[in-house]
Amino acid sequence: MPQTSSSRKPVKRNAFYAQSGGVTAVINASACGVIEAAARHPRRIGKLYAGRDGIVGALTEDLIDVSRESRRTIRGLKHTPGGAFGSARFKLKGLDQNRAEYERLIEVFRAHDIGYFFYNGGNDSMDTALKVSQLGGELGYPITCVGVPKTVDNDLPHTDCCPGFGSVAKFIAVCTREAGLDVASMARTSTKVFVLEVMGRHAGWIAAAGGLAGRKPHEPPHLILFPEIPFDPARFLDKVKQCVTDYGYCVIVVSEGAAYADGRFLAEAGTKDAFGHTQLGGVAPVVAGMVREAHGYKHHWAVADYLQRAARHVASRVDVEQAYAVGRAAVELALSGVNAVMPIIVRTSSRPYRWTIGHVPLGEVANQEKKMPREFITSDGFGITERCRRYLAPLIAGEAYPPYRDGLPDYVTLKGAAARRKLATTFSV
Amino acid sequence: MPQTSSSRKPVKRNAFYAQSGGVTAVINASACGVIEAAARHPRRIGKLYAGRDGIVGALTEDLIDVSRESRRTIRGLKHTPGGAFGSARFKLKGLDQNRAEYERLIEVFRAHDIGYFFYNGGNDSMDTALKVSQLGGELGYPITCVGVPKTVDNDLPHTDCCPGFGSVAKFIAVCTREAGLDVASMARTSTKVFVLEVMGRHAGWIAAAGGLAGRKPHEPPHLILFPEIPFDPARFLDKVKQCVTDYGYCVIVVSEGAAYADGRFLAEAGTKDAFGHTQLGGVAPVVAGMVREAHGYKHHWAVADYLQRAARHVASRVDVEQAYAVGRAAVELALSGVNAVMPIIVRTSSRPYRWTIGHVPLGEVANQEKKMPREFITSDGFGITERCRRYLAPLIAGEAYPPYRDGLPDYVTLKGAAARRKLATTFSV
Repeated sequence: MPQTSSSRKPVKRNAFYAQSGGVTAVINASACGVIEAAARHPRRIGKLYAGRDGIVGALTEDLIDVSRESRRTIRGLKHTPGGAFGSARFKLKGLDQNRAEYERLIEVFRAHDIGYFFYNGGNDSMDTALKVSQLGGELGYPITCVGVPKTVDNDLPHTDCCPGFGSVAKFIAVCTREAGLDVASMARTSTKVFVLEVMGRHAGWIAAAGGLAGRKPHEPPHLILFPEIPFDPARFLDKVKQCVTDYGYCVIVVSEGAAYADGRFLAEAGTKDAFGHTQLGGVAPVVAGMVREAHGYKHHWAVADYLQRAARHVASRVDVEQAYAVGRAAVELALSGVNAVMPIIVRTSSRPYRWTIGHVPLGEVANQEKKMPREFITSDGFGITERCRRYLAPLIAGEAYPPYRDGLPDYVTLKGAAARRKLATTFSV
Repeated sequence: MPQTSSSRKPVKRNAFYAQSGGVTAVINASACGVIEAAARHPRRIGKLYAGRDGIVGALTEDLIDVSRESRRTIRGLKHTPGGAFGSARFKLKGLDQNRAEYERLIEVFRAHDIGYFFYNGGNDSMDTALKVSQLGGELGYPITCVGVPKTVDNDLPHTDCCPGFGSVAKFIAVCTREAGLDVASMARTSTKVFVLEVMGRHAGWIAAAGGLAGRKPHEPPHLILFPEIPFDPARFLDKVKQCVTDYGYCVIVVSEGAAYADGRFLAEAGTKDAFGHTQLGGVAPVVAGMVREAHGYKHHWAVADYLQRAARHVASRVDVEQAYAVGRAAVELALSGVNAVMPIIVRTSSRPYRWTIGHVPLGEVANQEKKMPREFITSDGFGITERCRRYLAPLIAGEAYPPYRDGLPDYVTLKGAAARRKLATTFSV
């Protein structure tokens, strides 16, 4: 970081932080990293404001004054899941389509002397951060924009992994191991096939994590259905039968994004509700139904849905540390004078696992998606390879339990006091 | 326990232990209690055999020789979910309908000099244990039968709670709190209604446990659907709308046993699969579908299924201790000379929570079911009362984390070596 000489007083600006897109078990740990790092630079960063409900808070000038929260609450964010400031599924359109939104952002930032924009999200959010940095320059309002990576889907390019993924991976691996023991116990006289549905619309990283639950062929999960591998019902049903014959039962982890060769999601291909409408979501019951039709095995199925991405109670310690680290790094990068970048996790060694923080230009991550490489999936398409295990295993390492009170995790809640509005104008989103 | 005098050498007999019905996160802790207690009485109890796959192992003379397992493995059962010896959904018929099964049990017990029968299960299993004790007498083969209570459903009478319930209750309460934070984060621009389906075909205890996640009206869960309260769609949908209006979102915990006034399960009333067959199981998508039809809110749903009852990773410490204690007590009761009983948990104080072990005759628990008392459910039928909280809260208290290795719980696996068969006869089940 450049030292300020006595002759040039450092410019002090305020900062803005927002959470964007689907939340995770550790996105608040990144917030904690941003806030605590900003507090270490009182001569460079004045107030830190957070958008209430993400970028929507910036557009509507609904800014949470973070300085009103106690240090203890801010520390507690490190062990609190969900998005404590509120997040939003709100993608700003392209500059040509809706320049007004970007201009409004700059208007609000100007009113509050925001010099730093920290945007905590996935691919779409990095695109937004990039555009804000560009437009700021155009409109004569220079602003330093730094992305903070976050996504349970683990699909951001360049970074070795995405904060948020390690914890959902750990939850799914743990639950697969546990449910596998349950099914194994009773397979002789009861359930023979168990299907667990996990997130991952386009990339199979979370499903792959289920594969960490077992090491030997007889250990669950026996089959994984990835979005990257076109679903072939006949081959799948043969495998299930073989598995029940060989081991007495079959545990299947299926990605919500599992799809036929023609691109149709399995989840769309099946159930209708009481009104005859196609039931979206729920690939697990579809897969379980196929198995029952074909083989008649007794089955059970589970859909983890939000339980998986909110499961702070069994978060990966590595994930919590990385989430915090990218938050802190974002502030340090901004103060070092670089703009329009995102910190990334750089793996320097797998065994023992070592990592450091690097950064890439926002333009290189915006709107891109990293799928599972084919060499991470076994040749039959139903399992993970040793290479994949080597990649995944360190990401779920270590426990980072939250404190408990009365038998429940003692998660923090913000006061969320709003900063005084400075603009007479309003903006509806 | 009666002291043996020097003139009467104590009779030394072998013992048999079996797991029955749906497994839990702590049924193996009960096994550990039985095994460790038996080992403390080498002059009274010789070998301890366990039925492979529960009572099926006794009928087929497939007995696991527990003495072949290391002390470390046995200790590890205390933190391992599922049924390590195998469990069975196999209810012995009435004596008049199938006397042959009971006679076969006595034949196997006689061949292996089994003097103690420890049966770890729920209502049905206590009925079986009772019949074995009766028939043993009739056939001139006296055998001491002691039940070991277990069920996630918490529906056994007389005992204050059932080992297995506290841990599933804790998992559901934790997940409801976590998923609630997730939904709250994003409700402004995304999911407004979240439905979590939990177990409990006839009794709403597990659904009630979800209620522990929040204390104030605005805190999730906002609505609970109990099997004990007939489902009224119009009232329910009104409540959901009110909740979204007041708080911005609505979190619903629904028991798989939720039913209409005429007894039809909600889960049966809805979806059909690709082949037009009624899809059983899955009340969560049915409820979510109703909400979407009526109000158009964006929704998500989860089905916890086996994840909940296998969730040893976040087990209740109280539950683990009680599961172990009833196992140990079963052995002590048997050695004290009582027969056809089941140890129970007796609550002596709620604040602070104190409990002790009592026992009741098997005849008083067999085939009975304890539902939620009406005064545990709020007058509107959608929540839990303070009395219910006072009852439930101690049962989820304390954490009892398993050891981890490579980021995953280090659960034990038995060698499971079979005892040498002594009978030439076989028996098919």
